[in-house]
Amino acid sequence: MFIAMNRFKVKVGSEAEFERVWRERDSHLATVPGFVTFNLLKGPQKEEYTLYASHTHWASKADFEAWTRSEAFRAAHASSGPNKVNYMGPPEFEGFESVLSLSIGDKAA
Amino acid sequence: MFIAMNRFKVKVGSEAEFERVWRERDSHLATVPGFVTFNLLKGPQKEEYTLYASHTHWASKADFEAWTRSEAFRAAHASSGPNKVNYMGPPEFEGFESVLSLSIGDKAA
Repeated sequence: MFIAMNRFKVKVGSEAEFERVWRERDSHLATVPGFVTFNLLKGPQKEEYTLYASHTHWASKADFEAWTRSEAFRAAHASSGPNKVNYMGPPEFEGFESVLSLSIGDKAA
Repeated sequence: MFIAMNRFKVKVGSEAEFERVWRERDSHLATVPGFVTFNLLKGPQKEEYTLYASHTHWASKADFEAWTRSEAFRAAHASSGPNKVNYMGPPEFEGFESVLSLSIGDKAA
């Protein structure tokens, strides 16, 4: 499993607009090969910003990389349009590979 | 859905020992109410450290908080024992609430 995560520092006051942009986005993800789940996550609020993370599970890193080179990727990023979200700096991308996994009902490990 | 994430900066050379500690840990998680999945994630390697994240999905933030006050939590943290992992600083905890979600097969959103 591969997790692609982008961390966004959204300035206090821009949270509702940020969530609106993501809600209205046409991500085209659900039909992309290797896509498993997407979540937009809201993290801790600091004095000046709220941390958000977009969080996409892929079957493999190769599936994620194929998506970044696809027409669906270009379409998703072209459709985001203008918005009034204020950020503290650019998003930070991090890719993760799972090295250990445990699910509900597995034998305790 | 609630995601509890701990980020660890593991010094280069300590990765195998860090993964061993987690692999041999008796987490007791699989039977905890509200637990959904756990993943130990390996992220980008920097010059001095490799980023890891422990990543636990809970049905709700309340379930996560109940676990941190439970006997299972004490047992999991008591059993980690001595190890030789070198870190760059303490782990960073971040808790996230999901605000948007999309899964394979959902209508494209």
